[in-house]
Parts: sequence; C-alpha cells; structure tokens
Amino acid sequence: MTEPALTTGPVLVVGTGLLGTSIGLALRDRGVEVLLHDVSPTAQALAADLGAGRPAYEGDVPALVVIATPVDVAGHLVAEYLDRYPYATVTDVGSVKNVVLAATGTSDMSRFVGSHPMAGREKSGPIAARTDLFAGRPWVVVNSGRSSGDALAVVRCLAIDVGASPVTMDAATHDAAVALVSHMPQVMSSLVAARLRDADPAMLELAGQGLRDVTRIASSPPEMWTSILTANSEAVTTVLAALRADLDDVIGALDTVAAGSHATVAGAIAAGNTGVARIPGKHGSAAQSYEAVSVLVPDRPGELARLLTLMGDQGFNLEDLHLEHSPRQPMGVAVISVMPSVRTAFEEMLAAHGWRVAS
Amino acid sequence: MTEPALTTGPVLVVGTGLLGTSIGLALRDRGVEVLLHDVSPTAQALAADLGAGRPAYEGDVPALVVIATPVDVAGHLVAEYLDRYPYATVTDVGSVKNVVLAATGTSDMSRFVGSHPMAGREKSGPIAARTDLFAGRPWVVVNSGRSSGDALAVVRCLAIDVGASPVTMDAATHDAAVALVSHMPQVMSSLVAARLRDADPAMLELAGQGLRDVTRIASSPPEMWTSILTANSEAVTTVLAALRADLDDVIGALDTVAAGSHATVAGAIAAGNTGVARIPGKHGSAAQSYEAVSVLVPDRPGELARLLTLMGDQGFNLEDLHLEHSPRQPMGVAVISVMPSVRTAFEEMLAAHGWRVAS
Repeated sequence: MTEPALTTGPVLVVGTGLLGTSIGLALRDRGVEVLLHDVSPTAQALAADLGAGRPAYEGDVPALVVIATPVDVAGHLVAEYLDRYPYATVTDVGSVKNVVLAATGTSDMSRFVGSHPMAGREKSGPIAARTDLFAGRPWVVVNSGRSSGDALAVVRCLAIDVGASPVTMDAATHDAAVALVSHMPQVMSSLVAARLRDADPAMLELAGQGLRDVTRIASSPPEMWTSILTANSEAVTTVLAALRADLDDVIGALDTVAAGSHATVAGAIAAGNTGVARIPGKHGSAAQSYEAVSVLVPDRPGELARLLTLMGDQGFNLEDLHLEHSPRQPMGVAVISVMPSVRTAFEEMLAAHGWRVAS
Repeated sequence: MTEPALTTGPVLVVGTGLLGTSIGLALRDRGVEVLLHDVSPTAQALAADLGAGRPAYEGDVPALVVIATPVDVAGHLVAEYLDRYPYATVTDVGSVKNVVLAATGTSDMSRFVGSHPMAGREKSGPIAARTDLFAGRPWVVVNSGRSSGDALAVVRCLAIDVGASPVTMDAATHDAAVALVSHMPQVMSSLVAARLRDADPAMLELAGQGLRDVTRIASSPPEMWTSILTANSEAVTTVLAALRADLDDVIGALDTVAAGSHATVAGAIAAGNTGVARIPGKHGSAAQSYEAVSVLVPDRPGELARLLTLMGDQGFNLEDLHLEHSPRQPMGVAVISVMPSVRTAFEEMLAAHGWRVAS
C-alpha cells in the first residue's frame, strides 16, 4: 500500500488476540505508531514480536484506543480508557454492540464509537493474526447517537487504513443484523450437524454436497459462540423464535399429511427461494446473476489448473468456484459460475477442448 | 468406458425426465439396448433425440423395467409393469422407498427391487440429463425382503453400468437415512433463508461465507421437495422433532440468560462439532483429515489458474477448494485443503512464490 495512512497515532490496542494483533499489523504496515497492551504478558510480547507494535508504557498518550478483548469485558474497559485518556477516541471491536454500550457507564461518550469488523478466523490468538485479515471486509461503525463527528471519522479512517469498508449503523440495527446473517445460521448449522452424532455410518455415506454446505460452520468453537450468543441473546432469540414458528408449521403439515399440508411445505421451500436470492454475491451484485456450469475433472494433480488456465486463455471470467465430491469418486466436479451471457459459449468452448460438462 | 456392460437389455425406461433420460444415456453409452416411454410424447421424443434409446413399441419384451417417474405414481406403475412383463425385473428410482413398496399391491414382488441413485440436479426434464449424472455417486439398492437374489443382482449391475456405487439397504433404513442427510437439511436451509425475505438490504450486506453455505440448497424447487417431504413425512418428522427439541433448549437458554444457559448453548455448539466431524469427506475419508489454507488471490483473470498450476508443478495435491468473497473486495480468498502432513511445506512454498496466505 502506498497512500499515506488516514489514522493519526499513536494507536493503543488493548487485547492482542486475533483481532487486536491483526489491527496492529495492518496499521504498522501503513506506518502508524501502535502501542500494545494485554493482560497476558505472553500474548503482548508475541504480538510485539510479530510486528504489531511496541509494548505500551506508563507515559504514552494514545490518540485512539482500540479495545479488542472478549465482548464480556469490553464495556468496562471502554469506560476505563475514556477516563484515563481524556483526549483520546475509544472504540471496541466486539461482535455485539448494545451490550458494550450498556456497560460503558457515565464516561464522555462523545469520544466513544463502537465498531465491528466482519472478519475472523476459526483460530484465535496473536499467532493467527494477519495483516490482511480485514481486506475487503465490511467494518461496522456504530453511531451511539452521542458519538461526535470527529470520533466517527477517526474510527472510519481506522477501518479504511486496515483495508476494510466502513458501514455506519446503530447498535440495535447491528445486533439484529448479525443475529440474522451470522448468529442464527450458526445455531441452525450446529443443530443440523448435532443430529448426525449418533447416525449409522452407512447412512452418512449417502451425504452429498448439500449436507456438507449446511454444516460447514458447525465446526466453529463453542466458547466463542457461547459468549457471542449470550451477549446478543435478545436479538438471536427473536430470530430463532420466528424460525421455530415456521418449523412448527412444517412439522404440523408433515406429522399428519392432510388438506393444506402440500401448500404449507411448498410455501416453506418457496420462502427459502425468495430469501436466498436476496443475499448479495460477489462485488455486491445479487447471487443469482451468475450461472453455474459443472465440469467433470479427473481426480489427478494439475487437471483443475489446466481447466482454469484454458478458461483464462479463452477469455472467460471465473465468478465463483467450488468442488463437489463423493466417496470413492474417480472424477471431481468443478462448479464454475459465469455470467449468464457467456454460459453457452463457455460450455461450447469446454466441449471443443474435450472437457465434459456434467450439469 | 471399455469393459462390457453387466446389464442384459432391453431395458425399458418409464419416465424420461432427468433421471430416466440420464439412465438411458449412460446405458446406451455402454451399448445396452434402451426402450423409452413417457406419458408426454414430447419428453419421450426428446429423450430419443438426445440418444437415450428408442421409443418402446407394443411387442417389446424388456428384461429390466426402470420406473423413473415422480414418487407419487411410482408404486402403481411398479405393480402395472410387474404384471405386464412376467419375466422382467422391475426397479424404481424414487427418493423415498417405503411409499413405493406400500403401493405395489399384490404383484410378484420377487422381481421388484427399489433403488435410489443419490444424484440429481437443480434442473429437471430430459434436456437436463447427462451421461455422467451417476458417476461416482452412491446408488441405494433396496432389498424388500421379498426380492430375489437374481433381481437384486440385476439392479446392482444397472447401478455399476451407469457408473454409480451400489449400496444395499432396506427401505426403512434408506428413508431414515435420506431424512437425516438430505430432507431435514433441506428444510432447515429453507427455513434459515426464509428469515432473510424481509431483511433490510444493509443487514444483508454483512453476510459472509457462512450464511451463503448454509442457504445454498434453499434455492431448490418447491414442487419436487413437497412431493419428497410428504412421501417421507414420518421419517422427516422424527428428525425435525428431535431438532426442534434442541432448538427449544437453545431458545430457552437465551430467552432468559441464567445459571445453566452458558452450558446449554456451549453444549449445542459442541454437539454440532461432533456431528459435522462424522460426515465422510472426499474418497470416503473423514472430512477433518484435511487442513484448509486460505490464499489471497487478486480478482483478475488467470490468477487462480496460476496458483493451482504452481501447486501442481510443486507436487502438492489439492484435496478440496472453495472461494470466499465479500462485496467490493479487490481480493478473493481461495481456501485450499491439503493433507496435514504437507501443510507447513505448502504454506512455505506459497510464501516463497509471493502468494499471501491469509488464514
């Protein structure tokens, strides 16, 4: 990156786990002075060794404090640092925003702006940190209603400097949004996967790509999700209760298949069609604007690379890609998304070069 | 394919939709004589034009009849064809097996073997058919208890000839298995997606890969799923009711966060960890035997091909791959699964060649 940083340091990062250390790395990459503090001297030293900044000292006066601790202690620390540095802007990066606001107490709230980078990993701690963790991700900036314009600008600049796209929201909207697009889907994926615990292995052999997709995030860490879900319990409960009402309808329709059952079941599946079509796809365009072409790829090293090289050489742009597998399958299927306008030409080009288009 | 076919023709395919036409194409590819029948003359002519076989005539005497109609008429047709051709083996390929068995009546059941190829597409009709539709997929062969050894062998040979892997099960086990690994996940994916129908677009902009994965199959057709879910209502209801009990526990724990709430929520997420780890991965090995390496890939044509070519040139085997996107992201992330034993060497090789490993 060559443009000068928008952020004026020094920036004090409190909590040098995955997010705090990644913020330090990204800011140091832009030349901003970063001070590090963690209750664990080991985590703090590790973050410093990784290049995320230097340990904070007694006389340091940060211009911006970033609280990057677990969400259950963030509110208390926000209040503490607002009081300790009366000229600093303070932000936190917790996954739930109302609970932090509620815990900040009677401090000067004009200098506080909550935020939430929509980035993470399945691993935690400073060793998992990456300079690029926030690249291209949304970074929610929460206007509490009491935040000053200056403080909001400081936090937006922080987001931009680490490569993220700032998005302004109030705390309740943020918490409802993540309940809907992140917390509820996590719970449901976990509950679907939990049904597989005692299944006969022969039954599991019939699993296809659908089950794999639905349950991928079910391997997420329980501790982290317990603190997130309990901190956002109200918004999550609202979404889960609405889903349970829909589930009750489907169970009722299937429990005794009678007049109206078919309409209820078809309505539930159709409502899912409508909902999934609203998820924005790559580059903000709607997911359904691409068409998927399934190409049979022999399970040998280099075959997929050969396919994608051909695609590039022939001038076709890859919009999305995933692989499908089955047990004991000598062929993989590469599902390649392309713009609808080139689909036919793409399929013809593949056929002309000896590739088999499966679906 | 060069080995001689195991199936003795002629094979009569009744119902020339996606599955029936694909079976015809695959059998013709092996040199087996295929006769086609469909209540729709257009669908029958189209399947014949595509090369799936020739129209059936009055005096034809098939050795094997494959009923490939919707599941709600399959049982009646099985009985009809058992009576019409007293020396033929008859099978059907419906997604639910008990309902077909129940509808077969008083025919000679020794010649009937239900089956279910675990293959399909989001599109239907003969035009969507593919010779390779069943390649490497499990094909469930249902022993009714009254099926003869000869009839079972005929249907197993059919599965092998079209490239599938036959798996023998009884009807109740099959129906319970697909309720668990296919029907319940479909319902839950649809219900998660349905919650997005009325969401503020700004909330949906925060969606990440997790939501996209959980809801991918929510775009499946309502009509097909309504007939499948109502035909397998008992097994599906059993699984959905168990999931609802777990959901009630989570909602109860979050509705009033109190003593025990954290343990309940953590237990639900941990149960999902256990369940998802049991899904067999590529080539029948457990999914968790691979490690995922996330590589930053500039969003330019040819970059992913260049990465995979490097991987092949350096002797690293690609076990799985998917792409992650965010709105307005100049970089994509390719998540590449490799064997744990080569992970470190793979990451070092990537770094040495200027690729950025993100997670």
